[in-house]
Amino acid sequence: MGEFDIIREIFAPLAADAPEAFDLTDDAALLQRQDYVVTKDLMVAGVHFLPKDPLDLVARKLIRANLSDLAAKGAKPVGYFLGCVWPANAKREQIELFAQGLKEDQETFRISLFGGDTTAHNLKTAPLTLSATFFGTPPKQGVTRRNGGLLGDDLYVSGTIGDSGLGLAALKKEFKFTTVDKASLVSRYQLPEPRLTLGTAIAGLATAAIDVSDGLLADAGHLAEMSGLRAAIDAVAVPRSAAAGAWIAAQDNRWRALAALATSGDDYEILFAAPPAMRRSVTVAAKASRTDVTRIGTLTRGAGVGLLNESGAEIAAPASGYDHFKK
Amino acid sequence: MGEFDIIREIFAPLAADAPEAFDLTDDAALLQRQDYVVTKDLMVAGVHFLPKDPLDLVARKLIRANLSDLAAKGAKPVGYFLGCVWPANAKREQIELFAQGLKEDQETFRISLFGGDTTAHNLKTAPLTLSATFFGTPPKQGVTRRNGGLLGDDLYVSGTIGDSGLGLAALKKEFKFTTVDKASLVSRYQLPEPRLTLGTAIAGLATAAIDVSDGLLADAGHLAEMSGLRAAIDAVAVPRSAAAGAWIAAQDNRWRALAALATSGDDYEILFAAPPAMRRSVTVAAKASRTDVTRIGTLTRGAGVGLLNESGAEIAAPASGYDHFKK
Repeated sequence: MGEFDIIREIFAPLAADAPEAFDLTDDAALLQRQDYVVTKDLMVAGVHFLPKDPLDLVARKLIRANLSDLAAKGAKPVGYFLGCVWPANAKREQIELFAQGLKEDQETFRISLFGGDTTAHNLKTAPLTLSATFFGTPPKQGVTRRNGGLLGDDLYVSGTIGDSGLGLAALKKEFKFTTVDKASLVSRYQLPEPRLTLGTAIAGLATAAIDVSDGLLADAGHLAEMSGLRAAIDAVAVPRSAAAGAWIAAQDNRWRALAALATSGDDYEILFAAPPAMRRSVTVAAKASRTDVTRIGTLTRGAGVGLLNESGAEIAAPASGYDHFKK
Repeated sequence: MGEFDIIREIFAPLAADAPEAFDLTDDAALLQRQDYVVTKDLMVAGVHFLPKDPLDLVARKLIRANLSDLAAKGAKPVGYFLGCVWPANAKREQIELFAQGLKEDQETFRISLFGGDTTAHNLKTAPLTLSATFFGTPPKQGVTRRNGGLLGDDLYVSGTIGDSGLGLAALKKEFKFTTVDKASLVSRYQLPEPRLTLGTAIAGLATAAIDVSDGLLADAGHLAEMSGLRAAIDAVAVPRSAAAGAWIAAQDNRWRALAALATSGDDYEILFAAPPAMRRSVTVAAKASRTDVTRIGTLTRGAGVGLLNESGAEIAAPASGYDHFKK
């Protein structure tokens, strides 16, 4: 198996629909004249996914994590560049399984491979390392930035928070879940659902938005900081799945448990701000995009982020979000 | 040192001139409406550079390897997205030295950082892994593809071939060079010179072009294959530096030595094809771009690539070019 066979036989079919890609036979791709929203996310085995995760799901998580960034900006995905560094002993079947996952999600999200680079570590122990640069077209209302939040804006989040972190805990056997709960939580960790339809529906309506990938509090902190405000989040209001509810019920300290969910990563939901006058429009946008959206707090004067209990007092939260350089 | 401090303090200044980058404070960047030539190259410690190479030079090599791809297409570089996976024990000073190299070459080539992702391995032994996606604007004549070569076209290459491979051999102490030769060869390995001016000058003149990074024969093979022809290369005509000449003189088998230089990687020269009627124009383009260009062969009927001796017989060459999956 050679590098060029891999490109020609396994990856080139993924680029067949994209004239931009020159069938992966050239030094570069050529993108046509239009505005692009561009995002880049890395994934490393042992850091962003488990070394034992099935490689088709890893491929789909790579796509979906990047699409989640585009979703938060209201962009419509069109294609991507892929970089793969395989361990020295990677087998052709592994690469094919990975490409199978790419193909599946390319079809789901109607995107094409535009180009990339494939190489291998010279160490068997070096982790599979993936890099993707994704391109989307901006919504006609313009991209939803992180920094547009206004004093008094409501804060909303899509879906449920903390499931992916619990899915990881389930895979690591840190907590015993029921079979059904475990399956749904692991699925949230391995195969997130980018909120593309919602992202489009709230473009021009949300004053600011961010994809929740580092943890709800960390990402609320980013949005608040960029908007020059403070994010006050009602811990009880944060939406949770039934599986997460069962986990909370088994914890000694309910507030600690709520804080843990709000600081675990990989949710891939959208957190956004919108003025109170837009509540009805937000409800309409959520319904139109068939996505659950919950109002969880407010942008207030000040800085940072607070997770508040029912009486409005701040809950002590653990380290705010995942930071790859602090462990 | 946290991930967000690193981005804000070390990388954001590299994006300060680019409105596209939103100061690296958002989920995505926004590229304005124009055509882009896009290329992506990965670099891994121990594979594409030596773990001991100074990190400012590693940064500059990453930039230059990508610019070389753009150069071959005749594109003018404008900016890039960067992905870094640092070993678990990376120090702030190392990241700063790396960023210093980026800054230096951003100024040299007038490019900006548009966005990216920074993360860390959870293993100290895992190698620094870099990914860059580069954007250029195409020449008004259109990009020079790999597949446009015509029967009877001359083949040309810029600069000299094999120096980078000898520089790597020098760093690995596989051969004892003079101090002066060693310095110039190592510099070719660590700090290649992308042939951007030449790439622009031959746009519309060259029928096909490719950047020579896998080795002259391998890349000539790619160009020939895409053009549906065979590349016949005159081994003696391939341009060599004085340092490479000294190395050849010390080898037992001259033809074997010539073949070794033509199959070592990392030259970052441009190989291109042009009809014989254009010889004068090629000379003018080379002179205008102040780049040495040498005619080294012909596109003939057939397939593959042949390295020929003075009597036109084929020299047995070692495995044709570097392949990360064949070692």
